[in-house]
Amino acid sequence: MPASANRRLVILAEGKFSYHNGKTAMGVIRFGRDTVLAVIDSTQAGGNVKTWLGEKPRFDIPIVASLDEALALEPRANALLIGIAPTGGRLPESWREVILAGIAAGLDIQSGLHTFLGDDPEFAAAAATAGVKIVDYRRPPERHETAVGRRHAPGKRVILTVGTDCAIGKMSVALELRRAAVDAGRSTAFVATGQTGMMIEGSGVAVDRVISDFVQGTVEEIVAEGERRGDWVLVEGQGSLDHPAYSCVTLGLIHGSTPHAMVLVHKPGLTAHDFDHLPERSFPLAPLGDFIRLHEQVASLVAPSRVVAVALNTSLIADEAEARRVIAAIGAETGLPCADPVRFGGDGLWRDIETAVDALPWVTPA
Amino acid sequence: MPASANRRLVILAEGKFSYHNGKTAMGVIRFGRDTVLAVIDSTQAGGNVKTWLGEKPRFDIPIVASLDEALALEPRANALLIGIAPTGGRLPESWREVILAGIAAGLDIQSGLHTFLGDDPEFAAAAATAGVKIVDYRRPPERHETAVGRRHAPGKRVILTVGTDCAIGKMSVALELRRAAVDAGRSTAFVATGQTGMMIEGSGVAVDRVISDFVQGTVEEIVAEGERRGDWVLVEGQGSLDHPAYSCVTLGLIHGSTPHAMVLVHKPGLTAHDFDHLPERSFPLAPLGDFIRLHEQVASLVAPSRVVAVALNTSLIADEAEARRVIAAIGAETGLPCADPVRFGGDGLWRDIETAVDALPWVTPA
Repeated sequence: MPASANRRLVILAEGKFSYHNGKTAMGVIRFGRDTVLAVIDSTQAGGNVKTWLGEKPRFDIPIVASLDEALALEPRANALLIGIAPTGGRLPESWREVILAGIAAGLDIQSGLHTFLGDDPEFAAAAATAGVKIVDYRRPPERHETAVGRRHAPGKRVILTVGTDCAIGKMSVALELRRAAVDAGRSTAFVATGQTGMMIEGSGVAVDRVISDFVQGTVEEIVAEGERRGDWVLVEGQGSLDHPAYSCVTLGLIHGSTPHAMVLVHKPGLTAHDFDHLPERSFPLAPLGDFIRLHEQVASLVAPSRVVAVALNTSLIADEAEARRVIAAIGAETGLPCADPVRFGGDGLWRDIETAVDALPWVTPA
Repeated sequence: MPASANRRLVILAEGKFSYHNGKTAMGVIRFGRDTVLAVIDSTQAGGNVKTWLGEKPRFDIPIVASLDEALALEPRANALLIGIAPTGGRLPESWREVILAGIAAGLDIQSGLHTFLGDDPEFAAAAATAGVKIVDYRRPPERHETAVGRRHAPGKRVILTVGTDCAIGKMSVALELRRAAVDAGRSTAFVATGQTGMMIEGSGVAVDRVISDFVQGTVEEIVAEGERRGDWVLVEGQGSLDHPAYSCVTLGLIHGSTPHAMVLVHKPGLTAHDFDHLPERSFPLAPLGDFIRLHEQVASLVAPSRVVAVALNTSLIADEAEARRVIAAIGAETGLPCADPVRFGGDGLWRDIETAVDALPWVTPA
């Protein structure tokens, strides 16, 4: 699923474009390599993405009311990306019409939904007629293999982002650290393990869609592939080790990628898991220091690993000085390099991570 | 998939009927409720299952050379159970012939293979013609739901078997403890989580075949169903928390079933994981005491749990007195009730487990 150099995207985010709900849309705009021409959300038509993401030219993207408006823009779009997940998992009828109109207008369809659009007879027939592609990023690979206990190649350093909850920025941190590593002249690879990461990177596997018996074997394989692309391999984490619903995916990533080091992502101010389908059930987050040690113990059951840094998502702390105070406090509490790489840049944190990883006795020279 | 009262099975185990390789065949014979008329293994024709399992009347099962011989027995068989997994996952041509002959003879086909026999056009057409059923136990449920953080019903006690490796007896221990609990007059339910357990029990889900995102939600659901069947719910564990290939499934079971208590299954003498597809890679087992504490820590990230007993598989220790010495030593080392319930009976261990579980502060009265 290579990202083609000339994808010009319209992102469908009807009624949902926001920082929290638009995880896929925001991720693709912020970190992707494709041109984004417009976001469709009639409830916010006339707005602009730069209101959320700041004044960079690539964030100057209009929010429009309809696909027709998006198609009137120059250069013309060539792909429609589904930027949100429908509540309850079923495609609303109104989206179906937009997707069919996009296909008829010659747009490829890019989707990360659990329901595969390419398997829908109406969409498949329309795409065949129009000569466009439907890409379902969550479709699992045909390869069904259990892990073989692969060792990393000499000279490679594999770093996995882990977290204290889902949806707090493990992908964003991995991507920001990759950017910092590239800027520092390092040979790097980002290994996408979720649909948004795949849309950004053009490769990877949506690990949460893989049959559980093959999760570790699949992760082992995409990390091996990452090692062929770069020396510093940044693996996108999923879920959290203490999540009532998703910890199985998280551990599959830890034991499948056997990272030399982990970066723990945490969102200060968040005290309980985001269990939005059952808000009355509170599952408190694990305490930070204990959780760091537990990650190291659990990872080391298969291969030694250390948490070498804490990456904070300080988006709940509006005041910048206060955010910096919290970062310093958590750095002191954990004794680890600590920063908010997405808000304040990841260059310093990356230097600290490099130094720490290179000192690990289980990293082998090239 | 209810076990019908009058299944009369022939088990296909060609070239593989043994204690270690015939995990499915042995499990169904030892613990199942169906009548087993014969085992097909031409390499051991003339033998008898009681050589392995002892002198009980229900273990007096002939090993025959062919399906024809099995079909000549009275009462006549009505189902053929595939008791082994083909190397490499592909069905050998010789098995295909036997399965087709079984279908033509009016036998239902029972399979726990990853490859679904019911999806094979030749088998499906033959079954339709003969009016027989093909049951693929590993076929995952249609229900695709993530965990909702369900609490156990008042008065229920959920006990999960965990282990220091895969294939060391977590299912057998759970079934032996269920038998002891039933004999002690308790209302019990066994929750099968693998294909052999399902063949024995007639219900359950092969959790290793479930999409990883839904493992915890699926386990949560089958435990809820178990609570409707009994007060003491014995959940079959899978893999081990330190297994390079299967730990993801193991943690999904721990966090999906949120057991009040765990029973750790261990095989003295085994020092490294059974990694038979890559024997040169050695993954040592975790030390017992540390591993018990780690299970409690990891489980308690979602709901409090305690390891209340150690169930040993002493099959590597031929001498009975020596086996009993090892049991006593590991009991002393761990400070926990310890027994080999499959070899020496599980009644005493069950009494100790009952006492320990009833004393746990997080078990709620009915």
